[in-house]
Amino acid sequence: MAIWNGRVLNLCILWLLVSIVLLNGIDCHSRKKKLPKPCRNLVLYFHDIIYNGKNAGNATSTLVAAPQGANLTIMTGNYHFGDLAVFDDPITVDNNLHSPPVGRAQGFYFYDMKNTFSAWLGFTFVLNSTDYKGTITFGGADPILAKYRDISVVGGTGDFLMARGIATIDTDAYEGDVYFRLRVNITLYECY
Amino acid sequence: MAIWNGRVLNLCILWLLVSIVLLNGIDCHSRKKKLPKPCRNLVLYFHDIIYNGKNAGNATSTLVAAPQGANLTIMTGNYHFGDLAVFDDPITVDNNLHSPPVGRAQGFYFYDMKNTFSAWLGFTFVLNSTDYKGTITFGGADPILAKYRDISVVGGTGDFLMARGIATIDTDAYEGDVYFRLRVNITLYECY
Amino acid sequence: MAIWNGRVLNLCILWLLVSIVLLNGIDCHSRKKKLPKPCRNLVLYFHDIIYNGKNAGNATSTLVAAPQGANLTIMTGNYHFGDLAVFDDPITVDNNLHSPPVGRAQGFYFYDMKNTFSAWLGFTFVLNSTDYKGTITFGGADPILAKYRDISVVGGTGDFLMARGIATIDTDAYEGDVYFRLRVNITLYECY
Repeated sequence: MAIWNGRVLNLCILWLLVSIVLLNGIDCHSRKKKLPKPCRNLVLYFHDIIYNGKNAGNATSTLVAAPQGANLTIMTGNYHFGDLAVFDDPITVDNNLHSPPVGRAQGFYFYDMKNTFSAWLGFTFVLNSTDYKGTITFGGADPILAKYRDISVVGGTGDFLMARGIATIDTDAYEGDVYFRLRVNITLYECY
Repeated sequence: MAIWNGRVLNLCILWLLVSIVLLNGIDCHSRKKKLPKPCRNLVLYFHDIIYNGKNAGNATSTLVAAPQGANLTIMTGNYHFGDLAVFDDPITVDNNLHSPPVGRAQGFYFYDMKNTFSAWLGFTFVLNSTDYKGTITFGGADPILAKYRDISVVGGTGDFLMARGIATIDTDAYEGDVYFRLRVNITLYECY
Repeated sequence: MAIWNGRVLNLCILWLLVSIVLLNGIDCHSRKKKLPKPCRNLVLYFHDIIYNGKNAGNATSTLVAAPQGANLTIMTGNYHFGDLAVFDDPITVDNNLHSPPVGRAQGFYFYDMKNTFSAWLGFTFVLNSTDYKGTITFGGADPILAKYRDISVVGGTGDFLMARGIATIDTDAYEGDVYFRLRVNITLYECY
């Protein structure tokens, strides 16, 4: 009987050791964490029409700052270096400017390189549709001429409370300096 | 006796199963996470006095950018679309501008809609009181006319190291285009 | 024998209690979390040369906004209050401006205090070296005259996907209003 009991006891001790290993395995504070599976993916488009002095009616963005000597209705030479625009752009689920918007992309961008086209973006998707209610805020560098550019999701509210992840942007279309359309593929890794 | 031992063994196996269920329950990498309880809540006020050309002495913010043709001492028409202000505002624990400040709200905002009042904010609470030492940085869209607006906490330092959460803002008072006071209810879900 | 079995049973119950305590101990959702060990540390320098009307060739940043009446080639008095600059600065691993850059620091800063030198920064390290490929985005207040200032890491992509942490900045060197060099000590607490 003592042998039998010892065996049960041993099983318990074994389980104790197994448990400790398992507990370590799920440590939230390990040095390098396994990337979780994405918990949400959204693909949305937004459309930016820049004010050029003649399109006040349908412009959705305007230059508000630029280097010394610049006029705020004409993009500067020098790859627009220093031009800063504020925008309130419609968001659509497809690439048609005239589709019913599901929200607004609101924020700013500025051109920040002198030897190529590159920008820095800070903006928020304000979503208000049957599918999504809430905001996602983004920030980061946008090397415009690259086909795909990753920027950071830096926050979220509502359906996207404390969202974390990235957005992969590509320029779906553009017309000179007046119109561009960005396709934004948002991958979230933390959802509540 | 063998029956008794089997019962103890069964209990251990049962416990093994229960443990596995519990371990899954706390998986850090599940697709949708349970919202943790808030770990910190702060309610603070900040006070913005916009420079209008005559109040240089007590103004705490100033327009620095605006669309073509605008003057930086007068808010533009068009719902101030494109006006960008930089600020360094006192933070108080109550709604009195003259209460001893517990820190400064520093950052920028710009008006970004042409058909209503709406802004985008990027700013930091620099707190330096007996209760709090550190910074909280916020970013996001602020649809001013809504009673309560949520913006994202995007970072923190010091007492608020890597803070995550949201702030619910409401306009506690305003006087024309020159003064406004925001009440900021900060809820943090991650504290170190 | 019944006593022995009872003892084994008690051990299992004890272990159940111990397990529950341990499970609580690693709860990801506790109110205050233990700060994890840093998973990555980088020390990098970036170099800002501000356009002053005469250095168009090698300037890496330019004023694009300022209060009413200001000229964008001269910093304003009043501790530069309201001056907003856009930059694309080389990043080096040592303090030599002429070392081969490992990336670019791209973003903006503005001076936001009227009674001392203080700024607010939003920028991205775009790293593209053999060691690092990806971006880290930062935001926060920078009380320039303090020796060390902490700002928040608010996002990251590539090698720095969803990075979280802080950066401690110090002004390594400066020359009047035209050049400054910042040493950035980045500590990340979450790495994937």
